[in-house]
Amino acid sequence: MWAASNPDAVELVDCVAGMVASGGKRLRPSFCVAAYLAAGGDPASPAVVDAAAALELLHTSALLHDDVFDASELRRNEPTAHIRQATLHTERGWHGEARRYGESVAVLAGNLALVYADRLMAGAARTERCRRIWGELTTELMVGQFLDVRAAARFRPDPALARWIALFKSGRYTVARPLAVGAALADGAPGLQEVFEEYGLALGEAFQLRDDLLDAFGSAEVTGKPARLDFKQHKMTLLMSFALADEPEVRDLVGDDLPGTDPDELHALLIRTGIRDRVEEVIAERLKVANEAVAASLPPAWAAELQAMATAAVYRDK
Amino acid sequence: MWAASNPDAVELVDCVAGMVASGGKRLRPSFCVAAYLAAGGDPASPAVVDAAAALELLHTSALLHDDVFDASELRRNEPTAHIRQATLHTERGWHGEARRYGESVAVLAGNLALVYADRLMAGAARTERCRRIWGELTTELMVGQFLDVRAAARFRPDPALARWIALFKSGRYTVARPLAVGAALADGAPGLQEVFEEYGLALGEAFQLRDDLLDAFGSAEVTGKPARLDFKQHKMTLLMSFALADEPEVRDLVGDDLPGTDPDELHALLIRTGIRDRVEEVIAERLKVANEAVAASLPPAWAAELQAMATAAVYRDK
Repeated sequence: MWAASNPDAVELVDCVAGMVASGGKRLRPSFCVAAYLAAGGDPASPAVVDAAAALELLHTSALLHDDVFDASELRRNEPTAHIRQATLHTERGWHGEARRYGESVAVLAGNLALVYADRLMAGAARTERCRRIWGELTTELMVGQFLDVRAAARFRPDPALARWIALFKSGRYTVARPLAVGAALADGAPGLQEVFEEYGLALGEAFQLRDDLLDAFGSAEVTGKPARLDFKQHKMTLLMSFALADEPEVRDLVGDDLPGTDPDELHALLIRTGIRDRVEEVIAERLKVANEAVAASLPPAWAAELQAMATAAVYRDK
Repeated sequence: MWAASNPDAVELVDCVAGMVASGGKRLRPSFCVAAYLAAGGDPASPAVVDAAAALELLHTSALLHDDVFDASELRRNEPTAHIRQATLHTERGWHGEARRYGESVAVLAGNLALVYADRLMAGAARTERCRRIWGELTTELMVGQFLDVRAAARFRPDPALARWIALFKSGRYTVARPLAVGAALADGAPGLQEVFEEYGLALGEAFQLRDDLLDAFGSAEVTGKPARLDFKQHKMTLLMSFALADEPEVRDLVGDDLPGTDPDELHALLIRTGIRDRVEEVIAERLKVANEAVAASLPPAWAAELQAMATAAVYRDK
């Protein structure tokens, strides 16, 4: 449609389509659909497909913007959108600053993805309750991103804030809210919301810890992201908040000055103190809490499905 | 609410609130409310207030992002949000690049304003038609912004594209679509949409030409924006597209190389060739078309109201 109206517009739509097509775990749509079906939603309804697509497009928007905020150059083994657009700007010999152009296009592509997400959800969410959950989800995403960007710049080791951000970003945004959207679309029993909240927050914490472990100890080839980026950026991750709380040696090394801490020394110390194994234990424990929450309240087949999803999300290599 | 949840979050909400409170012409809400009432909408309904607020918040979002794309330092006589946030970053001695921090916060504030706009409109727009218009309006905004950013970087004198972008950005986004939202909310006669489209596109062009004239010949003190920014950025404005089409001397000076043209020389030539008076004539002519469109189709009192709004929008000094 945009090609007919103005062919140049296709470049923006392609940024969005490229990110959607580049893969990803599709966690948020999966949780939405699973909750919808578990709550007794009609499998033939197109609304849940629209809602699931809206969640994926919202995430696409967040990734396009996040890569700009983090100055990240690699995503899913490909150059990020803002880097590609900046390169195009340079190759074409265009006017102005290539960096600003690339970042502007990536921000606008993220905006377009957000607009598409909202359009899909506006069509799918027929109840006040469903609209309210979507509104809270999108608002929390923006506030959560801001707190993350702010904490990275402020840069004080603040384990409580790190935990709060992780619950927002992973617990709510990735798990609990997508489940709540699915359950609300099915117009299921309101009691399910509490179950999904408990499952989501526990799983979200385990999920975020896995994210941090993959950044710290995973390989860039498998994750498709630069290795140890959080370290290089001295990020106050959930992993770091555990290390600071549990390991006197880490506390001594970092002191009040995470930015001033040598990332290689810190990395070596985390391995030596065995924080990795300890965090694996926390992950297993949080997974258990999540699984018990659904076992107690859902039909066995759906409890098993959500438990399998939780295990796959937490024991992943990318 | 966010203050209780996390006091740091207030800084982001304040970016949005600050921009909304800093003034502006409130054109889009005014057009929405006028069309709603002209189409027979119930004055006591809260939906039109929500819709009008959504339009203003959408515009707030666009301004916050636009200032980043344009690297603009001044808006409404105050430093822009990204500049203020970058300054804060430096003053606080925070970690990382101040520019990236300021721009990230401004982008997130714009996102938050967009999310609020969508939440308000999701509650107000109860009909499919109204939701469709809002969806098209927000999509067109992002595509229009992209084409604008792209054209500024590509930087070839392309009068047809300049005109197309002006129709998108001013005709549709500022006038026709807000009117259409108001008319759809009132569930008025569908025939009105065509009248509003004609009025909106003619008025939008006149409005954009005024914008360009104010940039080229206005004073920064009155407009609250840096003077002659379009010139300094060698922008292919609607004014320039007229000058290139009408003035052989301007064509000779610019040739194929607007970026390479000396802005002061170009500015002096535009004054000497009298393009300013000629553009004033085009503005008057477009205003006449807009006014005739509503005179032929609306009750006299509402036609007069919309004509007064058109005149105020076009003959303004900032």
